[in-house]
Amino acid sequence: MPREFRVALLGQGFMGKAHSNAYCQAPHFFDLPYTIKRTLLCGRDTTTLSAMAARWGWEQTSTDWRAAIDRRDIDAVDICLPNHLHAPAAIAAAEAGKIVLCEKPLALSIEDARAMAEAARGVPTLVWFNYRRVPAIVFAHQLIADGRLGTIYHYNGSYKQQWGADTTRPPSWKMDPSLAGSGVGDDLLTHLLDAALYLNGPMTRVVATTRTFAPNRPVDDAVVAMVEFGNGSIGTFEATRFGIGCKNSNAFEVHAEKGMLRFDLERLNHLEFLDATQPATEQGLRDLLVTDMKHPVFPNFWRPGHIIGYEHTFIAAIAEFLQCLSKNEDFHPNFNDGVAVQQVLDAVQRSAKTGQWTTV
Amino acid sequence: MPREFRVALLGQGFMGKAHSNAYCQAPHFFDLPYTIKRTLLCGRDTTTLSAMAARWGWEQTSTDWRAAIDRRDIDAVDICLPNHLHAPAAIAAAEAGKIVLCEKPLALSIEDARAMAEAARGVPTLVWFNYRRVPAIVFAHQLIADGRLGTIYHYNGSYKQQWGADTTRPPSWKMDPSLAGSGVGDDLLTHLLDAALYLNGPMTRVVATTRTFAPNRPVDDAVVAMVEFGNGSIGTFEATRFGIGCKNSNAFEVHAEKGMLRFDLERLNHLEFLDATQPATEQGLRDLLVTDMKHPVFPNFWRPGHIIGYEHTFIAAIAEFLQCLSKNEDFHPNFNDGVAVQQVLDAVQRSAKTGQWTTV
Amino acid sequence: MPREFRVALLGQGFMGKAHSNAYCQAPHFFDLPYTIKRTLLCGRDTTTLSAMAARWGWEQTSTDWRAAIDRRDIDAVDICLPNHLHAPAAIAAAEAGKIVLCEKPLALSIEDARAMAEAARGVPTLVWFNYRRVPAIVFAHQLIADGRLGTIYHYNGSYKQQWGADTTRPPSWKMDPSLAGSGVGDDLLTHLLDAALYLNGPMTRVVATTRTFAPNRPVDDAVVAMVEFGNGSIGTFEATRFGIGCKNSNAFEVHAEKGMLRFDLERLNHLEFLDATQPATEQGLRDLLVTDMKHPVFPNFWRPGHIIGYEHTFIAAIAEFLQCLSKNEDFHPNFNDGVAVQQVLDAVQRSAKTGQWTTV
Amino acid sequence: MPREFRVALLGQGFMGKAHSNAYCQAPHFFDLPYTIKRTLLCGRDTTTLSAMAARWGWEQTSTDWRAAIDRRDIDAVDICLPNHLHAPAAIAAAEAGKIVLCEKPLALSIEDARAMAEAARGVPTLVWFNYRRVPAIVFAHQLIADGRLGTIYHYNGSYKQQWGADTTRPPSWKMDPSLAGSGVGDDLLTHLLDAALYLNGPMTRVVATTRTFAPNRPVDDAVVAMVEFGNGSIGTFEATRFGIGCKNSNAFEVHAEKGMLRFDLERLNHLEFLDATQPATEQGLRDLLVTDMKHPVFPNFWRPGHIIGYEHTFIAAIAEFLQCLSKNEDFHPNFNDGVAVQQVLDAVQRSAKTGQWTTV
Repeated sequence: MPREFRVALLGQGFMGKAHSNAYCQAPHFFDLPYTIKRTLLCGRDTTTLSAMAARWGWEQTSTDWRAAIDRRDIDAVDICLPNHLHAPAAIAAAEAGKIVLCEKPLALSIEDARAMAEAARGVPTLVWFNYRRVPAIVFAHQLIADGRLGTIYHYNGSYKQQWGADTTRPPSWKMDPSLAGSGVGDDLLTHLLDAALYLNGPMTRVVATTRTFAPNRPVDDAVVAMVEFGNGSIGTFEATRFGIGCKNSNAFEVHAEKGMLRFDLERLNHLEFLDATQPATEQGLRDLLVTDMKHPVFPNFWRPGHIIGYEHTFIAAIAEFLQCLSKNEDFHPNFNDGVAVQQVLDAVQRSAKTGQWTTV
Repeated sequence: MPREFRVALLGQGFMGKAHSNAYCQAPHFFDLPYTIKRTLLCGRDTTTLSAMAARWGWEQTSTDWRAAIDRRDIDAVDICLPNHLHAPAAIAAAEAGKIVLCEKPLALSIEDARAMAEAARGVPTLVWFNYRRVPAIVFAHQLIADGRLGTIYHYNGSYKQQWGADTTRPPSWKMDPSLAGSGVGDDLLTHLLDAALYLNGPMTRVVATTRTFAPNRPVDDAVVAMVEFGNGSIGTFEATRFGIGCKNSNAFEVHAEKGMLRFDLERLNHLEFLDATQPATEQGLRDLLVTDMKHPVFPNFWRPGHIIGYEHTFIAAIAEFLQCLSKNEDFHPNFNDGVAVQQVLDAVQRSAKTGQWTTV
Repeated sequence: MPREFRVALLGQGFMGKAHSNAYCQAPHFFDLPYTIKRTLLCGRDTTTLSAMAARWGWEQTSTDWRAAIDRRDIDAVDICLPNHLHAPAAIAAAEAGKIVLCEKPLALSIEDARAMAEAARGVPTLVWFNYRRVPAIVFAHQLIADGRLGTIYHYNGSYKQQWGADTTRPPSWKMDPSLAGSGVGDDLLTHLLDAALYLNGPMTRVVATTRTFAPNRPVDDAVVAMVEFGNGSIGTFEATRFGIGCKNSNAFEVHAEKGMLRFDLERLNHLEFLDATQPATEQGLRDLLVTDMKHPVFPNFWRPGHIIGYEHTFIAAIAEFLQCLSKNEDFHPNFNDGVAVQQVLDAVQRSAKTGQWTTV
Repeated sequence: MPREFRVALLGQGFMGKAHSNAYCQAPHFFDLPYTIKRTLLCGRDTTTLSAMAARWGWEQTSTDWRAAIDRRDIDAVDICLPNHLHAPAAIAAAEAGKIVLCEKPLALSIEDARAMAEAARGVPTLVWFNYRRVPAIVFAHQLIADGRLGTIYHYNGSYKQQWGADTTRPPSWKMDPSLAGSGVGDDLLTHLLDAALYLNGPMTRVVATTRTFAPNRPVDDAVVAMVEFGNGSIGTFEATRFGIGCKNSNAFEVHAEKGMLRFDLERLNHLEFLDATQPATEQGLRDLLVTDMKHPVFPNFWRPGHIIGYEHTFIAAIAEFLQCLSKNEDFHPNFNDGVAVQQVLDAVQRSAKTGQWTTV
């Protein structure tokens, strides 16, 4: 009889929905070492809270996230609150001995992030950089780790959305710097940074610039950066909410000694791969549909060619987290990985102010 | 308080998993007029039956599908049995007054299909041609229905998989003509036919040929057909399990007076559309990522660019079925639509024997 | 000092321009064993004939194509006349001992084609199925010839243009069955047939249907056929001038034991190739840019990635023809190859009338 | 009777071939106001000079480029010499009253470039940024100029080749900084800069970094830059000879208020365009095959879908130059445009040394 994993979810927004779904679905597709109990849902919008709890099977609700900390029948606290609450909630949860899962970005500042990691030193943690469970990205990681790419020369990442250009959208906490930290930096750039760390390793220096295209908007709409990696490669990052034409294009491209990789989240099931060790006449970018039963992550779900979507990255993340938990193994990305992202983000944001190359 | 929809699922294979998932997920993403109760799971593999029931929350199990017919606390019977059992199970269920949902193909023969439709005349029915709920296909249907394509000249469909070429695969009922009817005809071609009926309307004549490439295989591996449609367009169908290079490529292409459409299930979230009413210099095939909040089906799930997958077609189908049920409206595709597919399939299979153009 | 190759060009239309260009350009990119002399240009439109001769460096002109036959200082006659004149001109030229080059289709009928081949038995011949010199197609041929694809299961070809739907176009001989033979059959289908013969070998049986979508048009706008090949593979052909959305899409797709190929003339420099002998996780359709210095044909022109276009297929064809000529080797496609195309075309057209599977 | 345009070509390398071809072909496809006379070919490799002259119809040869300056029967001097000779040859030619055409980059330094422009103030000039005559790029320019894109937010350019990674290649002047100036900066980046100036206007500031990946190579292999444009947009440039997987990928991407553009020279005949003023459900990147008879440049060559290649950009450039010449109009890009490129290049190269944002 597996033990229970009693979780409290803090937050009832879009990410709350994605996480709720993951808790429901993980046991359907993975053999989990724990029974997930959706014990408590915390949120402040009382007009929708009970409906959301009913829809997703949360046993109880609270309008105060601190309720999750105080209860002894909660094993894990999952934080989907606005960014400025990540630190207080995570630190309180960790200090109460809870397992802590936290949406990205980890914190509003590198100081907060470090304090969170420090507080959570003794508890298992997870940061929801969910794209680390995209099968194509895991497979890219495998190819790189196996030496199939050789020395990497260029690593470019871009994350483009277009909704920032719609000035008729109702305001949200994402546009308030006191709640969100920054605009596109905290929101989209952090995904690029985590992917770069995962695939290409540490960064040493950055130089960056930001732009706010919308009049009177208090946060940045776009950030562009150049970066040097510890492995000698160079690259660029571009994160924007004014990437007209792109709904959710989170992309990277790698040029390396032995080949090339290209990915775009809008084509989540695909990885483009060129193997430069093949004869010159047969080198071409291959469109791999990463749904083979020998590919990573995917086989838990369906059969070859029966593609998966956005939500499956969350499902796979929580499943793998629970597997690590049962084996006392470190899960990644954890709070330390979140700190690593925050360090680069901090360097980017300092550079955007000074205009100088800035050491990470 | 919504009424209950108490369903019994017959079958514990791949489709049983897909349907189980749909019953779990539909209430998460749709406001349903019924509460779905996963009341009974019927299957004959007792080594896995209870585990599957536990995993997907089926309240009870039975090793005899007739148990579902006999119980009065079952509202609907969902048939995922091998093809040869569709007719007896559906007829028994319908005669017992159950709502009947049936995997495709509806039946082994046009006679069986008609008998099923006749038996089910008084009960709501559904055939699981799930791809009718792919947002891109629904949107293609809307464009055509709105006259955006004008007169259609060419309609081509192909469904290509490659697993037939793997002769090391363990045998399954899909390779046994007494259980499956035919090979690729019943399995893949029927999807093409339903899509063609949905998008381009009735067919009048076909000429077809089949092939079995694998030695000693008792069912066909490939079927190719030419077809005339009632609207004056012509086309081809190609269904194959020897489509090397294709994992699950269910595709169509339309050339019409005012434009062109192209779709491939391996790129489920995309629809390619060319609007020939635009200036000549600006006509090009557009890659629509069918995930806008104004696109059909998709907005129930996530946000623009956060793509969905294979399973969502089942979720959307059952949700729409329940909405029709509550309003006493006909759902499509129902058993009559299944008969229409079977009529074309029958003409195709007769033509493959005689080599003659054959009236549908 | 190389000998001269004194050529007379019959015809001043679009193909006359393409051939003129080839005669000018071949010596620039190939080391030819002959000096090409553009000796005589024959055409009936006297308002443009001398301007065309001046533009392309034709030494003399005549308004009667028979002048080319009669002159002793002409080595080769290149026929770009309307289809109905191919046979008389080619036979006259061959009987006068000329080398004969002829635009496709070779003739209006299989009988004419055979008579032409018979008359030309003693002279070198060429049929301008120029796409046999597309580097991607030659490379596809090499891969197949080298056994890289293994047993072929499916071969599909389609040639789609859209100009037939423009009913405001001025009439041309291509719409007159007495001059053109048929519509899309002689014009576009013959390209498909030659490519299929080149890549996949002889066809044994066909069944076909034709359509004329434009009111009162005396020739067919579309032809669709199913085909059986001698090697056991099956396939379809679709040729249409109502392929809305396609400017010049001459495409084929091959599924075979060891891989897949896909090509489209609108992307002339590309060949898509999937190698099914690679590990399952690394199988994907590769986009080969067929411009490597080890690829066929291309290296005569520019450097990798510096792409070529439509006209280069003619340049390469005449260059290779002259090389064969100097070595007394057979060039392909010659008149016998043209007859082979005509045989299949004849079977297609007979089948379109009878509706029966028809032996080639 | 048109006047003559008597040209001397300095240089017998790859560009000499491309220009020779352009002089031969321009009169075939354009109605030119001048008769081009290929009067003199200058080159120092006497083993191949006369053969090249014979092949391309150059009337005379000289082993000293100054011969072209001294002769009175030369109207124009076309400089395809190694970069370090651009300035002396161009200045000498201009001072002798010749029309001057010069390969890119204009010069080794901004000072040289300005001196060249100053010397050539009284004579017509051209810089061979040939890609300004790619139909897709001209069409992109038209769309932007017509306001179809609106305010531009992001402009990214990249030029990737892979031959730099092949350390077995024989050395060439391109790897000698005294002859080439820099590596990828002068060679590939200048193309990006000219395209950016043409499409998006002046740049104000840049910050850049360079890399030499090959051991002991005296020139840079890669340059990456961030850039601010005068119109408020921001972007990146990446030029590399270590872009493994890319043969000749000269690409740009624009995100703007009303749409998006994407181009890659490896797909020279295509322009991708998204029109964000269309309904949300119909917005998608369109693959325009820029070969319509209403598209720019293309109609001089062939018919829709009959694609052109690399060489046609040179043909169209010289044809347009001659048309401007006959009308006393300024051709672009001329030496002043070349200076503008050089100014940005200079800022890039200074920034790469200092690491500072640098004003152009």
